Amino acid sequence: MPHPRLTLALAVLEAIATLAFAISGFVEARKNRLDSVGTFIVATVTAFGGGTVRDVLLERRPFYWVVHEDYLLVVFGLSLVAPYVLRMLSKLSAERVLLVADAIGLGLFSISGTSIALDAGMPPFIAVLMGVITAVVGGILRDVLCNDIPLLLRDSRPYATCAFVGSWFYLLLDRLDVDPIYSVIAGTGFILIARLVTYKLEIRLPH
Amino acid sequence: MPHPRLTLALAVLEAIATLAFAISGFVEARKNRLDSVGTFIVATVTAFGGGTVRDVLLERRPFYWVVHEDYLLVVFGLSLVAPYVLRMLSKLSAERVLLVADAIGLGLFSISGTSIALDAGMPPFIAVLMGVITAVVGGILRDVLCNDIPLLLRDSRPYATCAFVGSWFYLLLDRLDVDPIYSVIAGTGFILIARLVTYKLEIRLPH
Amino acid sequence: MPHPRLTLALAVLEAIATLAFAISGFVEARKNRLDSVGTFIVATVTAFGGGTVRDVLLERRPFYWVVHEDYLLVVFGLSLVAPYVLRMLSKLSAERVLLVADAIGLGLFSISGTSIALDAGMPPFIAVLMGVITAVVGGILRDVLCNDIPLLLRDSRPYATCAFVGSWFYLLLDRLDVDPIYSVIAGTGFILIARLVTYKLEIRLPH
Repeated sequence: MPHPRLTLALAVLEAIATLAFAISGFVEARKNRLDSVGTFIVATVTAFGGGTVRDVLLERRPFYWVVHEDYLLVVFGLSLVAPYVLRMLSKLSAERVLLVADAIGLGLFSISGTSIALDAGMPPFIAVLMGVITAVVGGILRDVLCNDIPLLLRDSRPYATCAFVGSWFYLLLDRLDVDPIYSVIAGTGFILIARLVTYKLEIRLPH
Repeated sequence: MPHPRLTLALAVLEAIATLAFAISGFVEARKNRLDSVGTFIVATVTAFGGGTVRDVLLERRPFYWVVHEDYLLVVFGLSLVAPYVLRMLSKLSAERVLLVADAIGLGLFSISGTSIALDAGMPPFIAVLMGVITAVVGGILRDVLCNDIPLLLRDSRPYATCAFVGSWFYLLLDRLDVDPIYSVIAGTGFILIARLVTYKLEIRLPH
Repeated sequence: MPHPRLTLALAVLEAIATLAFAISGFVEARKNRLDSVGTFIVATVTAFGGGTVRDVLLERRPFYWVVHEDYLLVVFGLSLVAPYVLRMLSKLSAERVLLVADAIGLGLFSISGTSIALDAGMPPFIAVLMGVITAVVGGILRDVLCNDIPLLLRDSRPYATCAFVGSWFYLLLDRLDVDPIYSVIAGTGFILIARLVTYKLEIRLPH
């Protein structure tokens, strides 16, 4: 039985992660002067695209956003007020908030994707790839819709790499029979910290 | 039992809708100077992309275009003569014809998508989204293939919005136990008229 | 029972085909100055995208790249050394090597896609389309990720057309109860030769 307080904490973090990804969709939509429907579509695809592609690949149903319909409704509501949300955010030094929230999303989605793929009987390397897919495909689709080369492919700051290494770390802990509570926290925390530290230190991938 | 004359009428409208979407693919292909194979691919993706994505999401098989192979063959045949079709169309004041045919497609695909999702046991909000996905994803894929930001995301003329509101209207009628014949006609007609009226009156979505 | 020497030969050709498609991903990634993670993602999508989309459409699992995890690992390893690979290739008059390897991939993937779709009970026209999808979708996704209009759509040199005609040829041989060994070789060879000959003779599709 998972610890009820941890379950609540994970649900809160998950909501933060989904929201962070949706907000990065709002930002991109605004940059491209999309209308409010376009804003909703891009935000939804950013927030739910990775998990949806993972579930299609693993033949899992129902989708996350069918079970958690309320998340979809929140993104829908937010896209109506997105311009105001963004204005408010910029007052609170938006970029840093977005970076941290996005890094939480990166960590949580990677670990949950890896864990779901392991439960579906995938071998280790494939499970790690599913974790990375869950975390990064939403952002790739966001950039494709907005007619950019996906940031992820050319940014050279470790992003998918953090997800990849952290998912292996989680897998290792899982094989060592570490309690799921701790392995999920450690894996997510690893990715979160790796992303923030490599970003801060301006570490770059080779070209 | 559905009324045989209505069944025929719906089949004719469906063929018109598919054709209208394919033609919008031809137009876009011509604008981007695609060759005849590219023209066929873009037209096929525009006409069948929305329904295919819906069926993948709902795990429905066989696909519409596997059952109605003849539709695919017609689009295939047409893409060989597309330049002549387009020239003929331009003589008949093509833009207005295309607008109306596309609005019929928008209406029919939305209502059929919503109805199929309800039959698959989806909750109302998800069913309406499936209707909108059926109607708009083809056009989004067409624009992504032609390397444009999808028109839908930035046009600010209500398009997905008409599909969204009309699908709710259909759902309401369905809940009120209105005969399917009438609810389908009313829902499709609502979207068709909403699209044409908002277009004519130049009503715009907020940015 | 398939002939063991043929099985080996096909496995070798398949590896060459996958590699050729991955390398075309490396080339495109380099042109767009992607980082090493971006290079891996584009190469993987190019090499495995077509077969994956086919398997999603046909509801086949496990995916090719889940069974042949080693292929994925080779592409992963190669993308770390891709710049050196490309430099080496350019010394060996890379373009011609790439053209031939890609034509082998076009042939093999078309025939294997058609054959798999027939086994899944698809009608002939759909089976041929599945063959073409297997062969060309990877390249389309590569170009979409790199923010180009897919080469395939505008190149006007027969590519999908070779796959299409060759798949029909394979299907015909299959219906005539030709031994699978010979029909696969003949179909693949037909496409390989058709591609190289039409390329050399600069035959063009109509626009």
